[in-house]
Amino acid sequence: MRAAVFRGPGEIAIEEVPMPEIDSPTDAVIRVTHTAICGSDLWFYRGQTDMTEGERVGHEPMGIVEEVGEEVTSVKPGDTVIAPFAISCGECEFCRKGLYTSCVEEESWGGENGGGQGEYVKTPYADGSLVKVPDEHADDEGTLEKLLPLTDVLGTGHHAAVSAEVGPGDTVVVIGDGAVGLSGVLAAQRLGAERIIAMGHHEDRLEIAEEFGATETVAERGDAAIERVQELTNGGSNHVMECVGASASMNTAIEVARPDGTIGYVGVPYGVETDGLDLLSMFRNNLTLQGGVAPVRDYAEELMADILGGTLDPSPIFTKTVDLDGVPEGYEAMDQRDAIKVLVKM
Amino acid sequence: MRAAVFRGPGEIAIEEVPMPEIDSPTDAVIRVTHTAICGSDLWFYRGQTDMTEGERVGHEPMGIVEEVGEEVTSVKPGDTVIAPFAISCGECEFCRKGLYTSCVEEESWGGENGGGQGEYVKTPYADGSLVKVPDEHADDEGTLEKLLPLTDVLGTGHHAAVSAEVGPGDTVVVIGDGAVGLSGVLAAQRLGAERIIAMGHHEDRLEIAEEFGATETVAERGDAAIERVQELTNGGSNHVMECVGASASMNTAIEVARPDGTIGYVGVPYGVETDGLDLLSMFRNNLTLQGGVAPVRDYAEELMADILGGTLDPSPIFTKTVDLDGVPEGYEAMDQRDAIKVLVKM
Repeated sequence: MRAAVFRGPGEIAIEEVPMPEIDSPTDAVIRVTHTAICGSDLWFYRGQTDMTEGERVGHEPMGIVEEVGEEVTSVKPGDTVIAPFAISCGECEFCRKGLYTSCVEEESWGGENGGGQGEYVKTPYADGSLVKVPDEHADDEGTLEKLLPLTDVLGTGHHAAVSAEVGPGDTVVVIGDGAVGLSGVLAAQRLGAERIIAMGHHEDRLEIAEEFGATETVAERGDAAIERVQELTNGGSNHVMECVGASASMNTAIEVARPDGTIGYVGVPYGVETDGLDLLSMFRNNLTLQGGVAPVRDYAEELMADILGGTLDPSPIFTKTVDLDGVPEGYEAMDQRDAIKVLVKM
Repeated sequence: MRAAVFRGPGEIAIEEVPMPEIDSPTDAVIRVTHTAICGSDLWFYRGQTDMTEGERVGHEPMGIVEEVGEEVTSVKPGDTVIAPFAISCGECEFCRKGLYTSCVEEESWGGENGGGQGEYVKTPYADGSLVKVPDEHADDEGTLEKLLPLTDVLGTGHHAAVSAEVGPGDTVVVIGDGAVGLSGVLAAQRLGAERIIAMGHHEDRLEIAEEFGATETVAERGDAAIERVQELTNGGSNHVMECVGASASMNTAIEVARPDGTIGYVGVPYGVETDGLDLLSMFRNNLTLQGGVAPVRDYAEELMADILGGTLDPSPIFTKTVDLDGVPEGYEAMDQRDAIKVLVKM
């Protein structure tokens, strides 16, 4: 089989690799039909985080079950399934409470499981991890492309909204116009927010934000952006969704939050250790900071129901489509910000 | 009148100063009968934060109303009152929602209002700030000493517990054995916590923690302390109260929190900018961080009811008593950790 492999910063190669095999009764092997490239893949692509050379990459697979171990009961060969970016046993304390990302089994994509950007993957704990697409929707290409973001960004944007305690009638600020920020706008709109102020720096992305439900957009940078939001909200918002994951954007979130407000954050907070977090302002204003790595498995069913029901469609975040051979080009497009998110169709 | 005045790091002097005067119809002048020295006073005393030379200090006054402006309706001359460390108008958006510390009027002790460690203070917004002690308790010295911590540390400890979402049956970790940490133990116990693990470094203070309801104490330092708590809680607690306010203690809170747990923090987070906060661990474990400067005015009535009802007594935190002339000695005792908290009786 063939798969995308990391060969060093800026280098993704498509190579022949061993087929994954069932070696535990709870495993399932999936033939990947659709996957995506994630903003978080750019961290290792840009050499900003470590990645072993030769590692298979990708963590957002969707596809058809090829084979299952003897204890797997929730899916069977032929089923179309979504595999969230975090693998979860479904049975430990944390999975039981919905925090699948803290599963005690600590399994992940890569290694023997393979990466999402490859022809096949093995999912350990198939019953705890996989989400079945109802058969009547499994052959509809348009629907599948809408469902694919359930593997990561749609659930992550939703986690930002839930963590920011967004509810009906609220005024919400969403920081970031990447795939997660845009998914966050969708999620806030779905949860009933009345005003959604989207902050970002790209006109084309902010246009999608408006399609997704943003009532106002703020394209300014730095202090000008903060002043604009302060002005629009008469002193800050009670609900702020931080969808970037950097010191500057975290501090922007703190500055645009209203005293007693809640910041939901879902971007890996790179750079905070060195560049600082304005905790003193958080302290003075009694801000709540919650969120973290999104347990997207927990949100899959409710979001899928709305997608299948026709009221939710995140697929406009895919602004470029490639096949497996096009994955290296997909990374380049995302690195250059020529694409918001790249869909990979095998 | 006489008052404690800051004369430079390590120097508190008792000096003759002008009497505060009513100059707004919402003011009240209070003759201070009891006050205290706060752990946060040590920051300027040690030269770690700025304080204007000549400034009158102290922010925890209790006393008898001497005179009120013509619009004051909730207290009258002769009433015994408690004045929380934050002055609040009682009528703005934030006061109305209980976040008195974010009052838009931004009034504070010091300057023309005088400091709590002086014979008289002026309280602007008397109706929004002062809490009346019921007449039948106003002459009981023992009761007054129990009520004085409502001006700051008892409400602050309670805010840590509320922010950590402590409830009946919970296992709670309290970090810090100063007056706020000990008040936090009391608050957690009052809210029904089943297990309270108190972390600190002083045997005598941890003994008070046990009197206050701590079921276990951890006196170890650094990694040994974290390991001990991890062991006691089988991997961390869902409720952590950070009652110190420093980078190291914040990071300890993160390390002893269970995935999905909530950290309530109430100590001014000095040093976090330079020494860092382990936000990446918070992110991985989906920890919630909430709290900040405690709106003690909001908690005064409910806590006072329990003190007057005989079920709550924070007064053991006062391990040294001085008069006004003894205030400099009181600062020294707290700086040297010879006293947990100093009571000042005029």
